[in-house]
This record gives sequence, structure tokens and C-alpha cells, in this order.
Amino acid sequence: MNYRMIGFSLGRILFTEGILMGISLLVSLFYQDGAVFCFIPAILLCLIVGGILGLKPPKNTAIYAKEGLVTVALAWIFISAFGAIPFYLYGLGSAADCFFETVSGFTTTGASILVDVEAVPHGLLFWRSFTHWVGGMGVLVFVMAILPMSEGSGMHLLRAEVPGPAVEKLVSKMSDTAKILYGIYFVMIVIEILLLVIGKMPLFDAVIHSLGTAGTGGFSSKALSVGAYNNPYYDVVIGVFMLLFGINFNLYYFILIGRIRDFFRSEELRTYLGIVAASVILIAANIFSLYGSVLESLRHAFFQVSSIITTTGFATVDFNLWPPLSKAILVMLMFIGACAGSTGGGIKVARVVILAKAAFADMRKMLHPNAISTVRFEKKRQDEKTIRSVHMFLSVYLLVFCSSVLLLSFEGFDLITTFTAVASCINNIGPGLEIVGPMGNFSEFSSFGKILLSFDMLVGRLEIFPMLLLFSPAVWKRRKKKLPKN
Amino acid sequence: MNYRMIGFSLGRILFTEGILMGISLLVSLFYQDGAVFCFIPAILLCLIVGGILGLKPPKNTAIYAKEGLVTVALAWIFISAFGAIPFYLYGLGSAADCFFETVSGFTTTGASILVDVEAVPHGLLFWRSFTHWVGGMGVLVFVMAILPMSEGSGMHLLRAEVPGPAVEKLVSKMSDTAKILYGIYFVMIVIEILLLVIGKMPLFDAVIHSLGTAGTGGFSSKALSVGAYNNPYYDVVIGVFMLLFGINFNLYYFILIGRIRDFFRSEELRTYLGIVAASVILIAANIFSLYGSVLESLRHAFFQVSSIITTTGFATVDFNLWPPLSKAILVMLMFIGACAGSTGGGIKVARVVILAKAAFADMRKMLHPNAISTVRFEKKRQDEKTIRSVHMFLSVYLLVFCSSVLLLSFEGFDLITTFTAVASCINNIGPGLEIVGPMGNFSEFSSFGKILLSFDMLVGRLEIFPMLLLFSPAVWKRRKKKLPKN
Repeated sequence: MNYRMIGFSLGRILFTEGILMGISLLVSLFYQDGAVFCFIPAILLCLIVGGILGLKPPKNTAIYAKEGLVTVALAWIFISAFGAIPFYLYGLGSAADCFFETVSGFTTTGASILVDVEAVPHGLLFWRSFTHWVGGMGVLVFVMAILPMSEGSGMHLLRAEVPGPAVEKLVSKMSDTAKILYGIYFVMIVIEILLLVIGKMPLFDAVIHSLGTAGTGGFSSKALSVGAYNNPYYDVVIGVFMLLFGINFNLYYFILIGRIRDFFRSEELRTYLGIVAASVILIAANIFSLYGSVLESLRHAFFQVSSIITTTGFATVDFNLWPPLSKAILVMLMFIGACAGSTGGGIKVARVVILAKAAFADMRKMLHPNAISTVRFEKKRQDEKTIRSVHMFLSVYLLVFCSSVLLLSFEGFDLITTFTAVASCINNIGPGLEIVGPMGNFSEFSSFGKILLSFDMLVGRLEIFPMLLLFSPAVWKRRKKKLPKN
Repeated sequence: MNYRMIGFSLGRILFTEGILMGISLLVSLFYQDGAVFCFIPAILLCLIVGGILGLKPPKNTAIYAKEGLVTVALAWIFISAFGAIPFYLYGLGSAADCFFETVSGFTTTGASILVDVEAVPHGLLFWRSFTHWVGGMGVLVFVMAILPMSEGSGMHLLRAEVPGPAVEKLVSKMSDTAKILYGIYFVMIVIEILLLVIGKMPLFDAVIHSLGTAGTGGFSSKALSVGAYNNPYYDVVIGVFMLLFGINFNLYYFILIGRIRDFFRSEELRTYLGIVAASVILIAANIFSLYGSVLESLRHAFFQVSSIITTTGFATVDFNLWPPLSKAILVMLMFIGACAGSTGGGIKVARVVILAKAAFADMRKMLHPNAISTVRFEKKRQDEKTIRSVHMFLSVYLLVFCSSVLLLSFEGFDLITTFTAVASCINNIGPGLEIVGPMGNFSEFSSFGKILLSFDMLVGRLEIFPMLLLFSPAVWKRRKKKLPKN
């Protein structure tokens, strides 16, 4: 285990966090909101600790799979802990509360312990939403985009951090790939802010909601979330942009280089849009009696479906009051999640498609034992290793999910609250049903419950393995023998 | 597709059902309960239809995998439809109601649409519970035990009908294996009846509850289930026998031939008992405040845990009123289910163990990409094919489960009722929570809901594939080319 390199990487990440927090400090200064002195100590701490750890690269900068996974897991825990300091100094809640809120930000979950969000200073609200933006594309991807790092190391980190069953490099150089991704991300967010401001949303609110959309996070500056404006134009803009940020970013790169046909040929994209369309129609029909107008039903169905499948978590209405069919559909969308390689969470459409296809292929094989049955996805034959890894993902995911539900039920809340709280956190959505519904919050859980759910959010964002491996003694065992190269 | 052989097998099975129904007719005659004329037409119909179809074996008696699966699926639908006739003639409910009740019986689910079970004639109650006994070990296994059939055909049928990831023959001849299994089954049930009668339970009740225990079915002659007697002795006898019937019957064969050590060495058995012990302790601690005595809490915890993990579904208390932690544990046990090769349902302990071990092996491989990581179960190395089939089982199971929850939520019941109704039916348990809780019933669902849940019960009992394949056009396509031998 290359501890020095892990420390060095963590140092660089913390240093970067300190600088990013500086932007929030400026917001705080601009609005004179009194939160300036919550930021200054936190920034200094990040810069000092980060500066010391990340000052000098170690002689051996090589990182293998194991180090990559450990670095990513630790990085996310560290930035959450340091990022929680401003909230704690302001007195937003207990240490567990502030940690929960920051993990929820970075993992782009958007679950909150805040009871009165509108009383929080602008600087802190900005920092809260800014963590969505940073966490959405990946903390380490960000660091790679702006800091030089050795090529092989980058790939191991990227693989551990970017959502989806397979990570591809767009261009030969890792850091260039990171830059392209962040470029697309940045341009899209600017367009959304512009569109919202054109629709007369105050600039601050437009920025907050665009950051929440881009990271598929869902923190809002309003207690009623996007529903506070009751403005169909905002619903459509945010609804469409949520869907856009739920698409694999590699596809946008295809558009950039003129391969527009490839964009629309993507099997995952088509499935994703098909699921969205079917869900919107079913829910709109189901809630028609509540709203009395086809257009109104479609508007609310579209916004909520887009928000849940992309795992953003904004809401325009209290869908906890919807009929069971609509709620059942939303709960399933929570698990399906967005496309691989997007900023969204959940199991991912690509995995669901591969699971379904592998199941059908195996059933064909039961009928015709000697037939050769292949699984094709995105026109490529999927090898046994990919299918196996998706199956493994599913079983470990279910294992963590069930254990979490069991542990959280010690808190004594009703089963739907418990089940959807875990589903919401592990899939990085934000709201669940009942007490943690779109108009509720997570403040009633104990510190134990909040730490458990924070762990689930990290597990979900990092796609399980980096977090689980932290608990494996084999990771921490000192080995004399050099590990074989991957 | 060998349609003649399928028809011949179905004929023999229906004929056997007619004879078995005759036993219920005798019960009806003995108690003079007025249900005699409900049985006579049903028996005649079974004997005539079965007699015609099963009169002469076809020239070609070969059955391959496809025919085996189709025969098993159709056999279960046919015996349920014909078995429902006495209920329908008595006027127990609509056609969907009677079909649901009979499917629930044969699949050993024990879910009921009866609102007032104690008003039903003895003959019909006996037939209802007798279906548990027949379905528990397998309808076709039964037919094989008593009727001559070609050797190769038997294996294909057995594989499609017996629960668990792997079916082993105990002795070289298929029909001898079936006879041994039924012998053990019969002796155990007689012991249970004796023990209950010694405890002064009326003979009829003792028979009903023993049939329900043996098949891990759970139909009771009392509205309050076993709780009606409020007798700790009955709770212990039935509780222990439920656990015993949840164990792989092959292990009892080991005891028979003197390999007692092998019995206790079984990894699945140990895991099963471990899960039971942990659940009983956790629930007893959790419900202590409700009952105020350690012994009372342990008694109710033990009975309910034993009933749910073995997927029997008897109840001594209304666990729907228990605290969330206990309910969460019970819901998880619903999915785990009993041991492979037992009469119980669910995913099966063996599959859960293999899934967990495969996940850990793959995680080890993430840390040490070049290491060789094998999955061992019951001291045998599991090959990729076994692991793959367990993974496939899990994904198809989840697919059917989620689709069913979605379809059932059209009925408009609350999410917990909907979720646990499907969980209860697909895992062949009986009670769920809320409306379908241990003191509730399934009468409020529409005919559509009842047919859907009947399908789920059959899917669960036959371990998914035979039922699903009925819907595949490839099964019904006429092929000129002869299918390759398995």
C-alpha cells in the first residue's frame, strides 16, 4: 500500500476544497450574511492540512487498483468532514447533522436535516449547493482536470469514482478527458442559469437550482423546493435539464465532435427516455383526479419523474400524497436511476438493461441447452466478465440495502419511512416517502441513523466497493511482496 | 414439442387428483357436513378427463428440458383449476376466489380469501389443507412415486419441480428417490399428529395443522390460526416441526442411512439455524415491552420466526402490531426462505449463501486482480455455471417481483399491503402486513389482483422459470428440426 501517495492525493484534494470554499466566502461577503467567520477557519484548515500533505509528491507515485479505491473512499470522507466545518461553526446542528448535510451535498443526494432552510445565510446555502456541483462530476476527476497527475494513476481513480459499469476514456490522455467532461458540464450549467434568469428567477436562486440540477443533487433554497415558485416555465426548464444531466456525458462529446447520429443511437439513452415517457403517462393518468387538468397532471408527472429517475430530488408537489400506483412507480424509478457516466445515481439504466438481457439470454438457453446465447448492449457483445460484474453489483447492492434497512429500523420509524430513507440515500435522490417525503426532512433520525445514512450515500455515490473495502482487513494489511501490476 | 406425452402426463396427474379428492369425500361423509355433493362432480370430472388423456402412453415417451418445464407449469395450473371445483360448487366465492384458494393450497402459500373459515364444512377444510401436503413435496414427484415413468423423463420433471439450486438423486433410480422422500415426509407428519393429539388437540384440528406444517403451507381451521388455542405446548410442537420441514429432505436421508455427522455438517442447515436464532433473539428483545415476560416474548418470537422463514404462515399473535424492527426482520425472512430441497419457499438459504460468498470472492478479486478466488459451498467448489444460475435466478426473481408490485398497485391499496402481498405470495408464505396481515385476508383484492397473485404463487413454487416459459412464443413454435438431446 502506497500510503505516501494516498496522503499526497488527499492533501491536494483538501487544498482544492479550501480554494473552492473561497468562492462561498466571496458570496458570503457579497451578501453580508454574517457567515464569513464560519468560512475563514474552515478554509485555513483545508489549506494548511492540504498544503502540508500535498506539498511534495512522493518518489513513488504509482497507484494500483487497491490504492485507487482507498484514496477515493478516504477523499470523499475527508472532504465531507472538512466541508461540514462552516455549517458546524454557524450552528446548523450537531456534528452528525452537519456531516450528514455535507455528505448529502457531495454525493448529490440532496437529503437535508434542515427544518427551516430559508433562514440559512446565502453563503452557506451557496456552499451547500456548490458541493453538488463538485461531487456531481467527481471530486477526483476535478482534481485531475486542474492538477497534473501520472497517467496510470488517473485511470484507477477515475474507474473508482465515475458511475457506471464501464469507464471509457474519450481521448488518449486522462486529464484531457477530465477537462472535456468538465467543459461540457460548465457550459450546460451556464445555459440553465441563463434560461432561469430570463424567466425572471432571482440570480441567486437560479444559481442554486442550476447547481442542484447539474449535480443531480436537489438542494433548494426554498422549503417547498421548486414548487415554491409555482411557475410552469421553471418546471419545464429544470425538468428538461435534470433529464439532460442524467444522460451519459460521453454522448455529449459525440455531439461535440459531430457524431450526432451516435447520440440518438445509444441504447441506454433510448431505454432511459422510454422509461421516462411510460412513467409520465402512467402517473399523469393516475393523478388526473387530483389536478383536474391534463396539462397540469402532465406537468407535475413530468417534473417528478424527471427529478426521481435522475436522482435529483427537487419537487413541485408533495408526491407523498399521490395514489399508491404513482408512489410505487416513483419508488421503482429510485432504484433504476439515471444513465451510466452521468451525474445521477441509482443502479443505472445500463445495468438494468444488461441484467434484463442476461436473464432473457439465460432463459433462451434453458429452452435450447445447446444454443449459443449472447448478450448485446450498445451493439457490442458483452463478455462474461461484464455480466458477472453487474450481477455482483446487484447482489452486494441488495446486501448493503437490506442491512441498512434492518439497522435503520432500530430507530422505530414506520417501514415506509425506513425503506424509502435508505432507498433515497443509497440511490442519492434526497426525498423518500412519509416522514422523509418531499415536504419532510431527515432531522428526526438519531446520530446513529444519520451516520448510517451518510455511509449509504457514500456507498451509492461511489458504487459500493470503495466504501466497503475500507472495512476489509486485507486492505490495511502490510504486505512485503510487491503487488502485481493490474 | 411432444404434445402427446404432455397430454398423457397431465391425464395421469388429473386422475391421481381425482383419487386424492376421494379422501376428502370420505372426510365429508364421516362428518356429514353436506359438502359431499360438491366433491362428487369434481371427482368424476378428474377421473374422466384424466382417464381419457392418460389412458394410453404415447409411442414416444421421451421428454426434454422444454417439455419438462411446460408439463410442470401446466400440471400445476390444471390441478389448481380442477381442485377449485368443490369450493366453487359449495359457493365459497367467485371463480377467481376459488382458484386463488386452491393455488394457495397447492403452492403451500396459505394465503386465503376466506373471511369466516370456521363456517366452512370439514370436508372442504380437509381438502384445502390436503393440497398443502400434495403440493409441498411436489405433485409430479408424487405421481412419479406411485406410477411408473421412464427414467430420463423423471429427472427433467424433478428438476423443474423441486426447490433449490441443485437437485440430487439420492439413489440411482428416480422413482425410488421419490418414494424415499415421500416416506420420510409421511413418517414426520404422523409423528406431529400424534404429538398434537397427545397434547389434547382434537384429531381433526391436529390433522389440519400437521398437513399445513408439513407442506409449509399454513392453512388453519381457525380464524386466529394457531393463536386460537393459546397453548404453549402446541406452539412449541408446531414451531419445531415447521423448522424441521424447512430442512433439506436429503439430510434426513443421511440420518436414515446412518451418516448423522453429515447432517450436522451441512453448511446450509447451520446458516439456517443461525439466522433463526439471531432473529428470535432480536425480535424477543424488541417485543419484550409488549408481553412483559422473557419466556412469553421468546415463545412468540420463536413461533413467528419459524413460521415466516419456513414460509408456512401460521401465526399465534398479530405481528402486524409489532414494532418496526421486528416487522423489518420478518419481511427479510420472507425473502430468505427455507432450505433448498425442503417443502418451504422463498429464495432459499443455499442461494443466499452462494450469492453472499460469490460477492465476497469478487471483492477479494478487486483487491488482488491476479488472485484466484473460488466459491465454496457445502465444502464443494461452485463452478461458474452454478453461480451464474443463482445470479440469474435473483435478477429474474426481482423482475417478476417488481412487475407484480407495480401491477398490484393499480388496486389502490397502501404500499405496505401491496409490497407484502406480493412478497407473501411469491415466497409462498401466506400472511403479509396491514390488510393482508396474519389476522387479515386477501378477499379485498379484485379478480385481476387474485389472478396476478395466483400467478406469483405458482412462479414462487416452481422457482420462476416453468411459469415464465409458458409465455414465451419460442416454446409453442412448431419446429421441424428435432431438438438436440440435453
